[in-house]
Amino acid sequence: MWNSLGKLIKTNITLSEFALMTHPNAPDPDELWMNEALELAALGQGYVEPNPMVGCVLVRDGCMIGRGYHQIYGGAHAEVNALEDCSSSGEVPQGSTAYVTLEPCCHFGKTPPCADALIRARVARVVVAVTDPFPAVDGGGIKRLRESGIEVITGVGADKSERLLAPYLKRVRTGRPWVIAKWAMSMDGRIATSTGESQWITGNESRYEVHQLRGRVDAIAVGMGTVIADDPLLTARHGGPRTPIRIVFARHRVPDLKSQLVRTGSETPTWIVAGPAIADSDLALLADHDVETMRCDSENSVDMVDEVLQRLAREDNLSGRPISNLMIEGGGGLLGSFAAAHQIDEAHVYLGAKLIGGLKSLGPFGDPGFPRLADATRFEIQSVQTFGPDVRAIYRRIKD
Amino acid sequence: MWNSLGKLIKTNITLSEFALMTHPNAPDPDELWMNEALELAALGQGYVEPNPMVGCVLVRDGCMIGRGYHQIYGGAHAEVNALEDCSSSGEVPQGSTAYVTLEPCCHFGKTPPCADALIRARVARVVVAVTDPFPAVDGGGIKRLRESGIEVITGVGADKSERLLAPYLKRVRTGRPWVIAKWAMSMDGRIATSTGESQWITGNESRYEVHQLRGRVDAIAVGMGTVIADDPLLTARHGGPRTPIRIVFARHRVPDLKSQLVRTGSETPTWIVAGPAIADSDLALLADHDVETMRCDSENSVDMVDEVLQRLAREDNLSGRPISNLMIEGGGGLLGSFAAAHQIDEAHVYLGAKLIGGLKSLGPFGDPGFPRLADATRFEIQSVQTFGPDVRAIYRRIKD
Repeated sequence: MWNSLGKLIKTNITLSEFALMTHPNAPDPDELWMNEALELAALGQGYVEPNPMVGCVLVRDGCMIGRGYHQIYGGAHAEVNALEDCSSSGEVPQGSTAYVTLEPCCHFGKTPPCADALIRARVARVVVAVTDPFPAVDGGGIKRLRESGIEVITGVGADKSERLLAPYLKRVRTGRPWVIAKWAMSMDGRIATSTGESQWITGNESRYEVHQLRGRVDAIAVGMGTVIADDPLLTARHGGPRTPIRIVFARHRVPDLKSQLVRTGSETPTWIVAGPAIADSDLALLADHDVETMRCDSENSVDMVDEVLQRLAREDNLSGRPISNLMIEGGGGLLGSFAAAHQIDEAHVYLGAKLIGGLKSLGPFGDPGFPRLADATRFEIQSVQTFGPDVRAIYRRIKD
Repeated sequence: MWNSLGKLIKTNITLSEFALMTHPNAPDPDELWMNEALELAALGQGYVEPNPMVGCVLVRDGCMIGRGYHQIYGGAHAEVNALEDCSSSGEVPQGSTAYVTLEPCCHFGKTPPCADALIRARVARVVVAVTDPFPAVDGGGIKRLRESGIEVITGVGADKSERLLAPYLKRVRTGRPWVIAKWAMSMDGRIATSTGESQWITGNESRYEVHQLRGRVDAIAVGMGTVIADDPLLTARHGGPRTPIRIVFARHRVPDLKSQLVRTGSETPTWIVAGPAIADSDLALLADHDVETMRCDSENSVDMVDEVLQRLAREDNLSGRPISNLMIEGGGGLLGSFAAAHQIDEAHVYLGAKLIGGLKSLGPFGDPGFPRLADATRFEIQSVQTFGPDVRAIYRRIKD
């Protein structure tokens, strides 16, 4: 059915997909439709968090008769959008297969349960990539579909969906946000010269990419060393789906009132994560500039990382919404603490085409590091690209 | 003529070349044929040095009627091989165009002058990419061709040929070999942990590539720190066109007689570059193991780099043949000296997918480094590839 040319033209699939489907070694059509749903899901990145990105396509007789994705936090879910797309083009979902990248929900959140919508639409079959570990769902959506006589298949495209949903899955499963560490270093691994010069090791093209990333994360964290050395603004210069909260990890001192971060505290959300050594009076002065405080009990920098991550992932943090993606922009001390806490999930490494050298020039990570190579955190490459003169490699941590 | 299908099939050009040639915006056919000659030239890499890599194709009426390249040091030159290829396939070179990546020679070296061979073959036209700065040629080949009534065009494919011939051109123009620095570092720019563990930061696939490179260079240099820390063998494990000479830069001490380098001194050429502080008696002991000595006058490590490079490029060095490609494998001290001497022409940077961190873990380059970012040596990317879990970026220095 799905390889009939007349039908396929109607579905607007791409030529390469058509070639794949009609090839004698064609992969499972379920997987191909799930890929379509996954591509749709990814369009929600930066817009839907703390919700998961979800995509859905409805297929009957090898034709896609509806597609949708979760477009924005608080808006309709993927399944509902796909059903609506189906109806609005004059198609009927009855008897079709729904491909959904995440288990349909079965609870009333901001919208009614999607499992019920699929049941009402009388789809015949639901193909699910991964089940939703969210406590209010956690297999309940699949159960409800099956109880209504709908055939449910799970695990199709599971690896790809797990990869796409990793930030959401980490938060739901471990109660901590997804941590993206970003650093730019010279081709010999330096972030500054021996005299502290660091602007710029990478080019405009790389910095543009960094600002794009900033515009889709929930928060950006830096240590006090970076605040003092660079006086950064930490905004997303070109905008983006969200305005990241700026978080300063302050164990021994707080940002100067004249720093860019404090001066713009009323324009852009700015939080101080304050260790026990910070005086209340310092925080009160910052509060006058709309800089909010998250007090920490941990003395130790590694414990502090874990304490803060747990609090950021909760609904009752300062913003009233869980942080899903936290970007760490340095400096070496903070990155070192996150590394030691085994909490760097993703790394964006920019390699500038300059050679700095020198024993006193700093690398991107401070102490404690991993004295034994067997303990070094291992990553795998997601992508490698050049941006102008620079190389950017994106890595994900390999779970042991 | 050159886009007539009947002819082209005979020339065995590739489909993509055919597409290029028959496209309405087709590039200059001279450039396309020169590309062919350049691809042939590159086949000689590792085999022809200290001679330049040269390729030649003979073309008449849009058909390639002969092709050749300089295959091995001491063997026939590209032009002669192309003429022979032409004859052996029953074609006649008379009236054809010869595309040569480097000016044909006009002197008797190991073989008779190529300019004369082209004149005798009565080619009508010679297209040359770059003129040969070698003192015995230096425009003389082109002059002789023109005096014989042959039309000569120069500069076609000049950039590509200069790039391919860069090691040869550097040696002839500056009297110093081409220097390839190779280092492997973690994704945070470390070459070892704080306790000195360095094996292995990169994987098998990367190390295979390093051994391939070793097998095509004339010599591999390391500093004494690396000899002591790693006790390396510095051979090309999988063979290759040449057996690199192993060179140790020794300013204050020489390798132990029990080191792998000294113990295998009779199997693989091994040289000690000895600074003024090294005692003659130490060198005599090494000589017993067939380790040869190159005495240096320079006290300073940067001066030493330049003194040694000049001597390595000369015919009367210890091997009796100029060194064209010198690979530097570390450690940080030696790399730092080469960087300070502005003598790193090419860099092969391997980025392992491990995070080491720590303030005491070393980076690849030692002192002095460049304290001002404006002074940092600038490079441009030649290629970026992944090898297993690692990224390799190849750079070339940008000449200021």
